[in-house]
Amino acid sequence: MTDKELYNNIEKYLNQKITLEGWIRNHRKQKEFGFISFSDGTYFTPIQIVYDNKLKNFSEIQKYHIGSSIKVIGTVVKSPNNNQLFEIQAQDIILLGDCLEDFPIQPKKHSKEFLREQAYLRPRTNLFQAVFRIRSKASFAIHEYFQNKNFVYFHAPLITASDCEGAGEMFHVTSFDLENVPKNKDGSVDYAKDFFAKSASLTVSGQLQAETFALAYKNVYTFGPTFRAENSNTKTHASEFWMIEPEMAFCDLEGDMDIMEDMLKYIVNYVLTNCAEELEFLDNFVEKGLIEKLKTLLKTKAVRITHHDAIKLLQESNKKFEFTPQFGEDLAREHEKYLTEEKFKAPVFVYDWPKDIKAFYMRLNDDNTTVAAVDLLVPGSGELMGGSQREERYEMLIKRMQEMNMKTDELSWYLNLRQYGGCIHSGFGMGFERLIMYLTGIENIRDVIPYPRTPGNCEF
Amino acid sequence: MTDKELYNNIEKYLNQKITLEGWIRNHRKQKEFGFISFSDGTYFTPIQIVYDNKLKNFSEIQKYHIGSSIKVIGTVVKSPNNNQLFEIQAQDIILLGDCLEDFPIQPKKHSKEFLREQAYLRPRTNLFQAVFRIRSKASFAIHEYFQNKNFVYFHAPLITASDCEGAGEMFHVTSFDLENVPKNKDGSVDYAKDFFAKSASLTVSGQLQAETFALAYKNVYTFGPTFRAENSNTKTHASEFWMIEPEMAFCDLEGDMDIMEDMLKYIVNYVLTNCAEELEFLDNFVEKGLIEKLKTLLKTKAVRITHHDAIKLLQESNKKFEFTPQFGEDLAREHEKYLTEEKFKAPVFVYDWPKDIKAFYMRLNDDNTTVAAVDLLVPGSGELMGGSQREERYEMLIKRMQEMNMKTDELSWYLNLRQYGGCIHSGFGMGFERLIMYLTGIENIRDVIPYPRTPGNCEF
Repeated sequence: MTDKELYNNIEKYLNQKITLEGWIRNHRKQKEFGFISFSDGTYFTPIQIVYDNKLKNFSEIQKYHIGSSIKVIGTVVKSPNNNQLFEIQAQDIILLGDCLEDFPIQPKKHSKEFLREQAYLRPRTNLFQAVFRIRSKASFAIHEYFQNKNFVYFHAPLITASDCEGAGEMFHVTSFDLENVPKNKDGSVDYAKDFFAKSASLTVSGQLQAETFALAYKNVYTFGPTFRAENSNTKTHASEFWMIEPEMAFCDLEGDMDIMEDMLKYIVNYVLTNCAEELEFLDNFVEKGLIEKLKTLLKTKAVRITHHDAIKLLQESNKKFEFTPQFGEDLAREHEKYLTEEKFKAPVFVYDWPKDIKAFYMRLNDDNTTVAAVDLLVPGSGELMGGSQREERYEMLIKRMQEMNMKTDELSWYLNLRQYGGCIHSGFGMGFERLIMYLTGIENIRDVIPYPRTPGNCEF
Repeated sequence: MTDKELYNNIEKYLNQKITLEGWIRNHRKQKEFGFISFSDGTYFTPIQIVYDNKLKNFSEIQKYHIGSSIKVIGTVVKSPNNNQLFEIQAQDIILLGDCLEDFPIQPKKHSKEFLREQAYLRPRTNLFQAVFRIRSKASFAIHEYFQNKNFVYFHAPLITASDCEGAGEMFHVTSFDLENVPKNKDGSVDYAKDFFAKSASLTVSGQLQAETFALAYKNVYTFGPTFRAENSNTKTHASEFWMIEPEMAFCDLEGDMDIMEDMLKYIVNYVLTNCAEELEFLDNFVEKGLIEKLKTLLKTKAVRITHHDAIKLLQESNKKFEFTPQFGEDLAREHEKYLTEEKFKAPVFVYDWPKDIKAFYMRLNDDNTTVAAVDLLVPGSGELMGGSQREERYEMLIKRMQEMNMKTDELSWYLNLRQYGGCIHSGFGMGFERLIMYLTGIENIRDVIPYPRTPGNCEF
C-alpha cells in the first residue's frame, strides 16, 4: 500500500485496515494522543495518523523523531477535520529507522540557500517534493509526446572531439594524469596519448548529430545532458543541464513552430492533469497565479512575428526601455516581457533573425541578411525555446562557415548530409530546466536540478 | 502523410491519391517503367513506387540516384506482387535533394566494420534502421513501465567530485588549459583553480544519489549516461553508455528481483508488440530464433538460486568447463550459459554473493560472508542486470568502508541517510546497451550506440 494508492482509491479503503511505510513529516504530541503527519513520498499531500494511549507502545511512539521512518498499521476513517478527506486511526506504529535530532529538515520554513547545502535531503520538503516530481512528470510528457508522434529518441554522444556549434566554453575530458600531461617537443599537449587519441570535450548540443538521424528517420528528438564551462554565476546558468532537441526532415520553419507550440501545450496540459496538488502548492507559496498562467497558455494561440516587425513594434510602443530596441540586435528581457505580457498577451514566436547574431547552420533567407531562426517567448518567462530551419544548400553552408572562420574539414560528415539526399529540415532546442522553472515558478536553476553543478560547486 | 500513417491505414488510403517525401533506397529501371524502393524512415518496410514513361519527366526520373530525397505524388494500389500489400502508382516524382554517386550506402551487403566508419549514414540501412528504432522504443518502454508504477525519474549528476563506487576508471573533467595545468609548490595539481574548485570526473553510476531520492519518494529510477575510462577494446565495453538504476525504499532483495523480472518482461513485450517488422528482420539476418527467444522469456518464470547453490550445481554437473566453478568466485560466461540454457532453460537470479567480490554498499547477510546481491542471467546473453539490498545499518556500513580503505568523510551525506530515517532499500542497475544487444541479437556494443566512444575512437 502506498499513499498514492490510498488517495486514488479512498472509497475502497474507507474503514479498512491498511499498512503504510514512510516517514514522519511532523509530530504533534498531546497527553493522551498524538498526530503524525506521514508521507511515503508517493503522493504530495501527507496523511494524518492519529494514535492514542490505548496503544501498548504509546510512550515510545511519543518519542519518535521527525524524519524517522515508521510502519503504520491502522484503519482509514473519515476525518472530522474539514481540511482533509480521511485520516488513519493507528493500531500499531513501529519505528523502522530513527532520525537523529540534528536532522536539518524540520517542519518550519527553510531558506532555499540553506536547502541547497542539504540537497540530498531537500526532496523531503514540500517545495522540492513538488519540484522534482514535476520534473519527472514533465520528462515523461516529453517522451510521450514525441513517441506518440513516432519520433525516434536519439541518444546524442556526450563526449565529443569537436566544438562545432561554438555555443559556449567546453569542458575537457581526459584520462591524462593532470600532474604529468604528456607534451610534444614544442610544448603542446600530446593528445595522441590521450584516451581518445585526440582532444575531447563534453558536448554543448546534440543537434548536429541529431540531424544525421533525422535524415534517416524523418523525425527524431534528443533528451539528454549538455554542458557549458562558462564561469557565470547567474540564476539561469548551470554547467550541466538537460536539453530536448527535436529535428524534423521535410519540415520548414512554419512546421517547426507548429511542433514547438504543440509540444509545449502537451507538456503543460500533462502537468496540469498529473500534478494538481504540486501546482496548487507552488501557486500558493512560489508564484501566485501559476495555475492560471498555465491554463491561459493552453487557450492562447501563439503569435508569429518577424524580428524586424517586433523591433518596429517595440520602437513604436512609446515604452521607456532600459535598452533601446535595435534592428539587427537581440531582444532584452524587458522587450520580451512587453511583447508577451503587454502587447499580445500570448506566447510569441519571433522569427527571421539577423544572421550576424545567429549560428552558422541556420538557413539564409532570400533577403541575404536574416536567417530562418525562431525564438519562442512565453508570458512570465521570456525565451523558452530556439529553433531554425537548417541550411540545406551545400555551397551556402560552406560559404557561411568560411565567413565565420570555421574549419569545414572537421564537419565534413555534417556537410555531406547536404550531398547525400539532403532535404529541407528544421529543429529546435529547449533547455529542460528553463521549462521546469516556467512550470513551477522557481526562479533559480539550482532549485530545479537535483544536484546542480555551477562554478565552484560540485557537491554530492 | 508518412509511410507509417499509410501502413497503419492502408484500407483507408487504397485507391486514394497521396503525397510522400523520403529517400530512394533502391532503383530498378526498365525501358518503359521503373521501380523505386522508397522510405521516409517512419516505418521499417519500404514502399514500392512504380512509374512509367507516361510521366513527362520519365527520363529525368530514371537518372535519380540511390540515396536521393524525392517527393512522390501517386495513387495507392493493391500490389500484384505477393510480397507486398500495396504499391504506389506514381503521377509525379520530384527530386528534392540529389545524392552523389559515391554515396557509401548502396543496396548491397556492407560489413558492420565499414558501416561503423559511416556511422552518420548507417541508420539508413535496414539493419541500423531496425536497431536504433528498437533502442528508441525500448527507452520509452522503460519510462512507461516506471511512470505507470509512480516511480520518480531522477536525473543523476554526470559530473562528480568523488569516485565513490570505485566501479572503474573515471574520466577527468576540467576547464584547465592542459598545456599549463596550475600546480602547487609541491608539484601537485592546484585544483582550487579548476572550474569546480576541486578535482572532478564523469560519473560511473548514479546509484548513491538515487538512494537519496528513494528515501524521499520511495520509488525512483535513473536513465542517463555513465562513463568508464577503461582501456579495454572488447565487444561489450564502451566508454560512454546509458544506464537504468531504479531504487526502492522499503523493498528487500526479493522485491528487487520481482521488479527486475517484471520490468524486463514489460520491455520485451513492448518491443515484440511495437517493433514486429524490425524483429523479423533481425531474426532473419542477425540472430535466428530471436523472436522465439523473446517470446519464451515472457512465458518463463525466473529461477532464484543462491550463489552457493549455483556453484554446487555447476560442480556437480559433470560438465567440462574451461574455468572451474569455485565458491567465493564470480561466474564465467560458460557457467551462466549452463545455468540458463541447459539446467533451467529460464532466466536465473543468482543471489547472496560472496562479499569480497562485491561493492561496499551491499547489505551483509547474517552468515557474515555473503551480501544481499543479485545478478539476473538470461538465456542467450548471460548477465543483464545486477542489484542488491543496500546496507542500511550505519555502523555496518562504516565498518565495511573502513575494511575496504574507503574515505568515509567524502561520503558523509551517504552515510547520513542511515541516520536520518533510514530504511530497508534495494535497487539494481541495467546497462541499456546490454539490453539492446539482447533484444536485437547484435553482438558488438559499437553497433547499438549511435556514435560509440571507445579507446581511440571519438568520431562525429
